[in-house]
Amino acid sequence: MMRIAILGFGSVGRGIARAILAKNLDITVTGLADSKSGIIDAGGIDLAAALARKENGGACGNAGVSPADVVAKADYDVLVEVTPTNVEDGEPALGHIRAALRRRKHVVTSNKGPIALAYPELRALAEESGVFLKYEATVCGAIPLIHAMQEGLAGNTISRLYGVFNGTCNYILTRMAAEGLTYDQALAEARELGYAEADPTYDVEGIDAAIKLVILANTVLDMRTVLDDVERTGISLLTPDALQLAEDQDCTIRLIGEIVPEAGVLRVSPRIIEKDHPLVVEGTLNAVTVGTDLAGDLTFIGKGAGSTETASAVIGDLLYIQSRHVQGS
Amino acid sequence: MMRIAILGFGSVGRGIARAILAKNLDITVTGLADSKSGIIDAGGIDLAAALARKENGGACGNAGVSPADVVAKADYDVLVEVTPTNVEDGEPALGHIRAALRRRKHVVTSNKGPIALAYPELRALAEESGVFLKYEATVCGAIPLIHAMQEGLAGNTISRLYGVFNGTCNYILTRMAAEGLTYDQALAEARELGYAEADPTYDVEGIDAAIKLVILANTVLDMRTVLDDVERTGISLLTPDALQLAEDQDCTIRLIGEIVPEAGVLRVSPRIIEKDHPLVVEGTLNAVTVGTDLAGDLTFIGKGAGSTETASAVIGDLLYIQSRHVQGS
Repeated sequence: MMRIAILGFGSVGRGIARAILAKNLDITVTGLADSKSGIIDAGGIDLAAALARKENGGACGNAGVSPADVVAKADYDVLVEVTPTNVEDGEPALGHIRAALRRRKHVVTSNKGPIALAYPELRALAEESGVFLKYEATVCGAIPLIHAMQEGLAGNTISRLYGVFNGTCNYILTRMAAEGLTYDQALAEARELGYAEADPTYDVEGIDAAIKLVILANTVLDMRTVLDDVERTGISLLTPDALQLAEDQDCTIRLIGEIVPEAGVLRVSPRIIEKDHPLVVEGTLNAVTVGTDLAGDLTFIGKGAGSTETASAVIGDLLYIQSRHVQGS
Repeated sequence: MMRIAILGFGSVGRGIARAILAKNLDITVTGLADSKSGIIDAGGIDLAAALARKENGGACGNAGVSPADVVAKADYDVLVEVTPTNVEDGEPALGHIRAALRRRKHVVTSNKGPIALAYPELRALAEESGVFLKYEATVCGAIPLIHAMQEGLAGNTISRLYGVFNGTCNYILTRMAAEGLTYDQALAEARELGYAEADPTYDVEGIDAAIKLVILANTVLDMRTVLDDVERTGISLLTPDALQLAEDQDCTIRLIGEIVPEAGVLRVSPRIIEKDHPLVVEGTLNAVTVGTDLAGDLTFIGKGAGSTETASAVIGDLLYIQSRHVQGS
């Protein structure tokens, strides 16, 4: 039996809760908090009831219990930190993750901020405490990319990594190419469908993709980079004419993130790319090609976002920890 | 330091040896044998010298040392079994794997025969002995597909698995479509390039793809199947006309292997498929889509064969075992 505490009960947190219930996983939730309320119960929180309360517009727990209380006082093996990303200073998630690691608790997170900003420090802390820090959900949602690079491709040297890391941009570009829409028309459509935020800057200017590159560079490629190291061009200035020009050559345009470790290159920019290239995926999909010395080029395609998809990555990390460290506890 | 014994010193065995040397891995080879000769040396075999002997047409070791001797007498943590596949009875590999597991040695293999024919028995034996049995290289070469399904996607229920599992057929179909070649012309070309055997039956009749389906079904999907359970149609009767007909609809033809676990379906057959589908890969590539409940559809594309590519999968398995069980020994 693995005991977890969940911070964040938005779409990802609830996706995890639903998966735990539906799959009857050997996991008990002993702490739960969002920004407004929380619960601590060493005997196991009634997840179905908490979900029902939250989905009826209520609070998931008691106003007197904060996320910091859950981190410090609940009785858990793994902290599941799935609050919204803050890329300025990573807070309050960063503080909660630090506190949990200091308590010798494993941490699984979907939060890009702390991993992009403070991975070396957090990793050292995890090693000191003899616990795991896992973050598969921070990059490309449901695609087990970090797993594949750290485990299946262990032994390979990665010479290049490039792909489509942002589903919002990919959706906009897909629609511009398919229907001849302008950028503004396609963005409006993406907003209507919930694929783009009211302020789309974070996605369309390539910031989200750049953060994912920083995470991969620092955690899997032994680089030490920050967001400012990424050369970055977004898609907001792209015209239907540019897409038509690409189309005339049997090509299209995709926002491609690229890392060349040996050259120290990190770059996000719109690229002209042949339509039958494996990275030309449609809609909100993500696709990443990993260039290696032994295995050659490998391409991974899948859903980069979504409540259930992100939950899949978090649960993969939880089961990874369970199979190694929490058995029999 | 992990000690391994290698059975098989053909293209895969030598690829592994070269990778161990080039990457300076913390691995010592204490036993080595092919069908003609062998060496046992607890102090560590000089791999570079063995490679040089073999590549100059000589023997890798002494005629008096057999593979069975290496399995029974060498001092190793992991048996690396990379002899050619025999799908009739899995021998002699099957006997060697059994003997190693009984000696409480981990086993890593690229050999489809024993895994397709005897996985339940071998797995029980490995569990009894408290050791790992790993076989990533048996399916889709360099693609860490089994890893991804067992680890990254742990927690998902797999509803469907389908893809291009045989590079030889994919090469032939690619060339027929691109150049309007007949099946015989494309096959002749594949033979010249070393992509097809003198007797191509195993590949072109879908037997190789079917064996991979059996391995995935039995090892990752909790099914109990044998080769005869796979409905199988090859590509040898396909005409350029059929490909042209597909082309006229912006489609092409690929040999697709498919498993639908709940329906008990295992099938290999040529399918008409839209040209921009992620599974439409060119040349000898493999591509597999895994349909899951949480993560949605995930597609993996990469090289399905080759000395270095297969070595990549074997080394991934070795490092997996090293990180879990052989540390500090």
